[in-house]
Amino acid sequence: MLIVQKYGGTSVGTVERIQAVADRVAETVANGSSVAVVVSAMGHTTDELVALSSALTRVPSPREMDALLSTGEQISAALLSMALEVRGVRARSFTGRQAGIETEPVFGSARIATIHTEALQTALSEGVVPVITGFQGYAGEDVTTLGRGGSDTTAVAVAAMLHADVCEIYTDVTGVFTTDPRLVKTARKLSEVSYDEMLELANLGAQVLHPRAVENAKRYQVPLVVKSSFSQEEGTYVTETSNLEQQSVVTGIAFEREVARVALIGVSLQKHGLAAVFGKLAREGVNVDVIVQSVVQTVDADVSFTVRESDADKTLSLTRAMQEELSFRDLVLETGLAKVSIVGAGMISNPGVAARMFEVLAGNGIEIKMVSTSEIKVSCIIGESDMEKAVSVLHTAFLESSPAV
Amino acid sequence: MLIVQKYGGTSVGTVERIQAVADRVAETVANGSSVAVVVSAMGHTTDELVALSSALTRVPSPREMDALLSTGEQISAALLSMALEVRGVRARSFTGRQAGIETEPVFGSARIATIHTEALQTALSEGVVPVITGFQGYAGEDVTTLGRGGSDTTAVAVAAMLHADVCEIYTDVTGVFTTDPRLVKTARKLSEVSYDEMLELANLGAQVLHPRAVENAKRYQVPLVVKSSFSQEEGTYVTETSNLEQQSVVTGIAFEREVARVALIGVSLQKHGLAAVFGKLAREGVNVDVIVQSVVQTVDADVSFTVRESDADKTLSLTRAMQEELSFRDLVLETGLAKVSIVGAGMISNPGVAARMFEVLAGNGIEIKMVSTSEIKVSCIIGESDMEKAVSVLHTAFLESSPAV
Repeated sequence: MLIVQKYGGTSVGTVERIQAVADRVAETVANGSSVAVVVSAMGHTTDELVALSSALTRVPSPREMDALLSTGEQISAALLSMALEVRGVRARSFTGRQAGIETEPVFGSARIATIHTEALQTALSEGVVPVITGFQGYAGEDVTTLGRGGSDTTAVAVAAMLHADVCEIYTDVTGVFTTDPRLVKTARKLSEVSYDEMLELANLGAQVLHPRAVENAKRYQVPLVVKSSFSQEEGTYVTETSNLEQQSVVTGIAFEREVARVALIGVSLQKHGLAAVFGKLAREGVNVDVIVQSVVQTVDADVSFTVRESDADKTLSLTRAMQEELSFRDLVLETGLAKVSIVGAGMISNPGVAARMFEVLAGNGIEIKMVSTSEIKVSCIIGESDMEKAVSVLHTAFLESSPAV
Repeated sequence: MLIVQKYGGTSVGTVERIQAVADRVAETVANGSSVAVVVSAMGHTTDELVALSSALTRVPSPREMDALLSTGEQISAALLSMALEVRGVRARSFTGRQAGIETEPVFGSARIATIHTEALQTALSEGVVPVITGFQGYAGEDVTTLGRGGSDTTAVAVAAMLHADVCEIYTDVTGVFTTDPRLVKTARKLSEVSYDEMLELANLGAQVLHPRAVENAKRYQVPLVVKSSFSQEEGTYVTETSNLEQQSVVTGIAFEREVARVALIGVSLQKHGLAAVFGKLAREGVNVDVIVQSVVQTVDADVSFTVRESDADKTLSLTRAMQEELSFRDLVLETGLAKVSIVGAGMISNPGVAARMFEVLAGNGIEIKMVSTSEIKVSCIIGESDMEKAVSVLHTAFLESSPAV
């Protein structure tokens, strides 16, 4: 059995925690498994390195930024290797280059092109635990980094290329929950979710598992387990299909605060300017989420879409600059909104779920401003002041009482 | 003109100091020179990394220790490159591997085997300043470090292989002095010393320039300049021969505290055990310095030698264990000693210098316990309580009054 274990920054944040991680790896080896480990930088190392570069320049060279940031994981990989050897476990640290993690030649957010696994396989065949720096690779002679969620991505890629039996993602929570336990006391840990559900639960799970890693896990069919490095609790399995017969219709309740809605009133549909506006927003780094178009006349429509509140001003000015092209009559911005979503693979075969969601929200006096649906998710845009109540009543309705509609 | 500039840990210790270094490099480039830079780790980075590893294990894997420590210079190299680019100077950081610095496959104290200079030469030919991590190289797939004085060694090796016109060593003192200015107020900065003098002044100069780097500079005839990164003062030139006609007989007064003397009384010279005892001490890491053998009978001799006080106990027990082999009658340890040396290339042609030194010391009531001479140095072992006075009176006699004997 070959296990890839990934330990995040909090899990290796101090010398004591590195020792706890070493104990866990040693235990896994003692149980007869082969282990490859992927580590993040210790705690706030990356922030400290960013602070140093910020003190020197507002626009650091991307190549040098990657050279700088990649040292964080090198430190934790070397330290964990030492801690393993003290425990009698043969170990060897691998930088992205040493591990053969070749990326496209892009700094700051490179994608992994391939992994030349010979060195890792040699180590494993010699009974040596490779301790691999997450978040980084190489392109030509340069060090590259993978951007946000990079260590998760490294772990999944290593697991895929080594054909590991499982990729364990150790973090500071015990797994994926039906919703945020800080918001809903009755939230419970899921024993299993599908890749797609995990992706839809992204904003719940982003702290836990980066969507990009989930996508790659799905693509290469790498079974994931999310669990805590601070306890022995069973984690949450993320696999292709959870057992359809047993599962409840709704797996979890996701939510997002600080949403803003931009409404274009009376857009001329003949002008085809909508694609242009969304293209422009994307190029400017504005992430447009829910889009709703309601035809009110034959030639005009109202189009509204949501963005992060922090992007609202930028969105307004970019959209206003295109008023002629779009020929809308009016532009309305509404802030102070939130998005609440119910997620579950079982929805596909349960068409009444969306209606039930609207009922529950309406029954609790919560106004729904926009709706968006996918095969395994229904999202409602509501007032942010209603959000916590909405999550709570939806959790009660879908995850605590009746198991199906 | 190609200049290699090496900046030590103090010179790059803070963001502000890195900016000052960047200013100096930019100025050198603006003056029309090509520059390659070698940097140490920032200030106490290396100590902090060592502390982390010490918290995990008393005997860290040498490979992992090198992987760990090498990150310190990677950080400063990336940061300095950023600071240079902000100033409009094209720059690129190079790890030991990227710079092609191949070493023997030894961790912790590898010697440089060769430098594959293609990448550095390409950068220089493109007008890019290579900012090279000192102290490290690679062997096979592994990162290796060069041990104490490693960054100086890197700088000299890079200068040698690139056929640089000069290698400037920036540090926190303004040059090499006739003796320690903290001890003797009238000590003055030397404008020039020879490689050999610099080597003999080692314990004065160790904080300034590592002996190993001086040896390599001599071997490859790399002109060195030692100067301060905190001022614009002229430094000290270290070259093959200083101008023999102009130079004074004595260049500097070196000294060393905490010396212990071990005397073996009545050693049987027939037994040839002396080589064995010094071999054994060397293998155990005891650095034997001055050795004096005085024949008192035809078959017996008194042999005394000096070691560091911190090695005295170890030396005694190792020597005592060989009493049978050596068949000495008695073993005497004396601590609280010091070594004072006068150094100067001009001594070769001035045979009276040693006698003058003994006169000066005796005239000041300082007892000489052992003497050792080389072509350009005379060392006396004296009581440590006499040391400061000895340095002072020797400085007055040789470096302040008459320029020659």
